[in-house]
Amino acid sequence: MSAYCLATYRSFDEKADFHKKATGIAVGLTVGSWTELPEAQKAQMEKHLGKVIAVEVHEPGPGEPITTRYADITIAYPDVNFSRDIPALLVTVFGKLSMDGKIKLIDLKFSTDFLAGFPGPKFGMQGVRDLLGVHDRPLLMSIFKSVVGYELPALREQFYLQAAGGVDLIKDDEILFENPLTPLEKRIEICMEAAEQASRETGQMLLYAVNLTGPTSKLASQAKKAISAGANALLFNVLAYGFDVLHELSADPEITIPIMAHPAMAGATYPSPHYGISPSVLLGKLMRLAGADLVLFPSPYGSVVMPREENLAIKHVLLTNDLHADYSYQASADAHLKLAASFPVPSAGIHPGLVPLILRDFGQDVIVNAGGGIHGHPLGTIAGGRAFRQAIDATLQGIQLRDYAQTHPELQSAIDTWGIRE
Amino acid sequence: MSAYCLATYRSFDEKADFHKKATGIAVGLTVGSWTELPEAQKAQMEKHLGKVIAVEVHEPGPGEPITTRYADITIAYPDVNFSRDIPALLVTVFGKLSMDGKIKLIDLKFSTDFLAGFPGPKFGMQGVRDLLGVHDRPLLMSIFKSVVGYELPALREQFYLQAAGGVDLIKDDEILFENPLTPLEKRIEICMEAAEQASRETGQMLLYAVNLTGPTSKLASQAKKAISAGANALLFNVLAYGFDVLHELSADPEITIPIMAHPAMAGATYPSPHYGISPSVLLGKLMRLAGADLVLFPSPYGSVVMPREENLAIKHVLLTNDLHADYSYQASADAHLKLAASFPVPSAGIHPGLVPLILRDFGQDVIVNAGGGIHGHPLGTIAGGRAFRQAIDATLQGIQLRDYAQTHPELQSAIDTWGIRE
Repeated sequence: MSAYCLATYRSFDEKADFHKKATGIAVGLTVGSWTELPEAQKAQMEKHLGKVIAVEVHEPGPGEPITTRYADITIAYPDVNFSRDIPALLVTVFGKLSMDGKIKLIDLKFSTDFLAGFPGPKFGMQGVRDLLGVHDRPLLMSIFKSVVGYELPALREQFYLQAAGGVDLIKDDEILFENPLTPLEKRIEICMEAAEQASRETGQMLLYAVNLTGPTSKLASQAKKAISAGANALLFNVLAYGFDVLHELSADPEITIPIMAHPAMAGATYPSPHYGISPSVLLGKLMRLAGADLVLFPSPYGSVVMPREENLAIKHVLLTNDLHADYSYQASADAHLKLAASFPVPSAGIHPGLVPLILRDFGQDVIVNAGGGIHGHPLGTIAGGRAFRQAIDATLQGIQLRDYAQTHPELQSAIDTWGIRE
Repeated sequence: MSAYCLATYRSFDEKADFHKKATGIAVGLTVGSWTELPEAQKAQMEKHLGKVIAVEVHEPGPGEPITTRYADITIAYPDVNFSRDIPALLVTVFGKLSMDGKIKLIDLKFSTDFLAGFPGPKFGMQGVRDLLGVHDRPLLMSIFKSVVGYELPALREQFYLQAAGGVDLIKDDEILFENPLTPLEKRIEICMEAAEQASRETGQMLLYAVNLTGPTSKLASQAKKAISAGANALLFNVLAYGFDVLHELSADPEITIPIMAHPAMAGATYPSPHYGISPSVLLGKLMRLAGADLVLFPSPYGSVVMPREENLAIKHVLLTNDLHADYSYQASADAHLKLAASFPVPSAGIHPGLVPLILRDFGQDVIVNAGGGIHGHPLGTIAGGRAFRQAIDATLQGIQLRDYAQTHPELQSAIDTWGIRE
């Protein structure tokens, strides 16, 4: 099966013959027609024909409405039919089909040959840890609060306060575009300067993910301009540009810093049970395939909520090697085709009292990411960063936050403000 | 208001204070916080602050469940906050917000200044008509049926049969990518040759929209290669690449042929009532803004169904000047900022018996587009094209299809096969 990519759909229909529907997809999205072809032509077309791999029908249970009737359908698409890029794959497996009733793309698995076209994350989780020199704990990231309309000194101050609290990464606001007040190169210059100042005090490294924006054809040169100006990471609104743009940026040998994928616009595609693309595909497999070193997604803990099982599914596909259509391949030693893991960054609504929960779900392979939970700390932004680092230290040592807080006033103040969720 | 772009959302919530929610959006997606700012800073930030323009709350009617409670909220975003590109606009108005509960982006209106960054369709409806020399009737387009796995002679034959029936445009299958059997330049060469052969018989011009595929950074050079090889139109899977890629292609002065936007993947975004982006924005305003000369979208008539009112909303925004946030502007004589109209192409499930319905909904400003309704004609593909032309002629002359068919056997045969819907 290694010459096929697999797509799994959840198809809702009150009365469809789902097996017939599956055959219709396998034929319709590949060779167009089959049973009516002359035998000679069948022999020639066979290698282009899609195959039905599985049809699992879920009839409504007692008391459930007929509208809940669905099937999970898996189709194998011969990879000879499409070129080695994400647009070709997506248009093949979900181009026309996305418009054909209640149907959601819930999984993709890639052939070894297709995967070979994708170098994957250049740094990945391990590479980001190496850059920071931190291997023994989850990382901590801080989000700029809105700095639209800010001038450089105010931006610098906010940056410094975040950095001085001991965060490992700071990301630009994703709605900060090229603008006359804080243009890319100036922003990098003053923020990296603030990072150095903080570093002298905290003794730790920091990555600043600067927002890469503007016309698509200029993004690579913008990225290189950012690197020349001293940037050590990039933030990118992948879904507003397309996965292929990320793929080309991440594969560019001159872009020598990690790329952080922002999920802006993702909510237009993943939340409906009936339409769109599941989070583990949209913010998981496709982001990693396209080469995101770090991937932000809505956490199940805070204000912008994604169900916990969907978060764990994203984590699974960012970290493990479960991308291959050829199952036997996964166990093979052919390591050069194993993509580096993308660092999971569950985001939104995070405060220090959630750290034990986050680490229970993600272990150490996670970046704890906060905005309001740092800037909104009653003792200020620096204390906000410290409270998170204390919560992480406590959790790693197996100490209850409440106990650790007795000797750590920043954590105590955070708990008094936001509580602890266990 | 001309320095603002307007976004309208449909927000579902069983108990929210929608006015408070609207203020939260206007502030949260621009300056971040407002009431707590010192007065001096307010003065500086005022021009970056979003404004609530309208909140229309729809309480559930008698007997309607509380889950149907929603509000249409319109927010004005200062265009000083974002650069003059679609990714920046979308990330601003629907980046984070798309992930914040049940909310759908249902309208966008652009400031005059923002619009000035978009040349719009290079040909547009009028330009396409001029190229074809047809101004007095709706156009007819034919879709290749699947030609994946075909060799050049079979492809040529299918092309010729479509062209000989009198269609005005033929589009590639959108799942036909660069491949060794029918590579781009060879495909163009043999199809344009078949077009000339047909043209000598029918006496009419024909546009062949060849599928533009491959890595994003190579698309412009692929397009130019296609033009050198004789292509006279391009097909493009816009949503698999991003609107900005279309914007850059359409604005490229060396791309001198019309671009036809395919809606592949659109069903991942528009159908849910609660999430995503409405068809009139996704397949209407943004396609036209990005410069699509022709726009395909699912018709309300056939197999892949979109509600009729959504089709008419797409038609409206493709054809009229209702794109401006500044209403007074619409009436102004400042014609250079009026984007050319994009040709509407309602697609899927179309047969000749639907032509009166299509023309009633769209008038002459439409391309009648068929696949199975041409290839599946009992008398063959040529007869399939003719039956459509006859149906169009009859309808324009105010003659019932049934009557016209008495002297037009191709139309009669089509009606016998698919019927007439009125």
